[in-house]
Amino acid sequence: MANPTAAMLVIGDEILSGRTRDANMHYLAGELTKHGIDLREVRVVSDDAPAIVAAVRALAASHTHVFTSGGIGPTHDDITADCIAEAFDRPIDVRDDARALLAEHYANTGRELNEARLRMARIPEGAALIENPVSIAPGFILENVHVMAGVPNVFQAMVASVLPTLTGGAPLLSQSLRIARGEGDIAGPLKGLAEEFADLSIGSYPFQQDGVHGANVVIRGADGARVGAAMARLSEIFAE
Amino acid sequence: MANPTAAMLVIGDEILSGRTRDANMHYLAGELTKHGIDLREVRVVSDDAPAIVAAVRALAASHTHVFTSGGIGPTHDDITADCIAEAFDRPIDVRDDARALLAEHYANTGRELNEARLRMARIPEGAALIENPVSIAPGFILENVHVMAGVPNVFQAMVASVLPTLTGGAPLLSQSLRIARGEGDIAGPLKGLAEEFADLSIGSYPFQQDGVHGANVVIRGADGARVGAAMARLSEIFAE
Repeated sequence: MANPTAAMLVIGDEILSGRTRDANMHYLAGELTKHGIDLREVRVVSDDAPAIVAAVRALAASHTHVFTSGGIGPTHDDITADCIAEAFDRPIDVRDDARALLAEHYANTGRELNEARLRMARIPEGAALIENPVSIAPGFILENVHVMAGVPNVFQAMVASVLPTLTGGAPLLSQSLRIARGEGDIAGPLKGLAEEFADLSIGSYPFQQDGVHGANVVIRGADGARVGAAMARLSEIFAE
Repeated sequence: MANPTAAMLVIGDEILSGRTRDANMHYLAGELTKHGIDLREVRVVSDDAPAIVAAVRALAASHTHVFTSGGIGPTHDDITADCIAEAFDRPIDVRDDARALLAEHYANTGRELNEARLRMARIPEGAALIENPVSIAPGFILENVHVMAGVPNVFQAMVASVLPTLTGGAPLLSQSLRIARGEGDIAGPLKGLAEEFADLSIGSYPFQQDGVHGANVVIRGADGARVGAAMARLSEIFAE
């Protein structure tokens, strides 16, 4: 059976202006792969409501799961929750359960639950909350969209809350072989191997190091025995 | 006048599986910002022809420029050039000018210009070549799509070949202020500032460091005097 598929939507001007280097995509990609969910597409859009709404609708319609990152804080540029509500035509307002979490947290830390912070309790109708053990303000799940914070340690904590609840497929296994020959020299035999093992994904990733041209060849698949068999053939072909 | 807009398409299973962390997006974002071109959207797709073709068509139709990264090497999983040709309904074959570049390079380095390497001379009809000073195999420009290699040092060299030929807008200027107060405390005044300076983009990026909650507030715009004025107001508001 095919694995569930996923898409990610990264929201934030700071990524697109080059100010910040996104870290969440690489993290989520690794976690989903381990969990047997195939990440098929990532989009990065700016803090622009029509762009966010359009991307959420397109991705939610074509993948089992969507994960978003960014734009759920207390400031004026945090518009993700409202955009998710709009994408699914749901009302959105401050919700009692989310407000209670924040009220307790700010009471404990001696800070004020002001109007700005209350924005973080705005949750679309029908959504389930995602626990945030780091800074309390929750993420949420609406339909198949998981809405999470952009700050990497909070994002990671939310992924950890969510992933165990999702049905994964067979984890994607991979083996790789470093070959110190130019890609152009190995491409022919590699193509033959890819045809022989058409059920696997065989990728070639070139490198140059200390003047040596080479490639890391990665063989991926859910069936460990097949991956092992393809790797054995690969080693045989390029035995030197 | 509004700046030209751009989108980027990153092609490669290795990014989506979490094996490799993409470096080209962050690099291109910074270069485009300096050049006055607004990067509005990035998509990452796997080595899957229908996904690549659909993304190229969608992005080319909605932005001034599109930049792609990855999938133009000699191996069987390098399918970008064929997908770009398909997206624009152009024929594609080995082209004499690209073949001549490769023939000279491989003759000079004593390697064989075999069938696999010749794949790198497959260029869609009507495309212009992009110079590759690192490893010679060229990128190309078809319509408004700039097709470049995924290996970071080659990608960067191709960006350097291409950017000076593109008309930029006013470079986006930015100033930032580090404020050692929680986002929830600064959100109210910041919203007022964003309304007062509606022609600028004002973003707030929270951090936690050594137990201190704070935010970097970044003010961006093409008009340096306005950015300066907004920063002066910001400093005044949060003077401690």
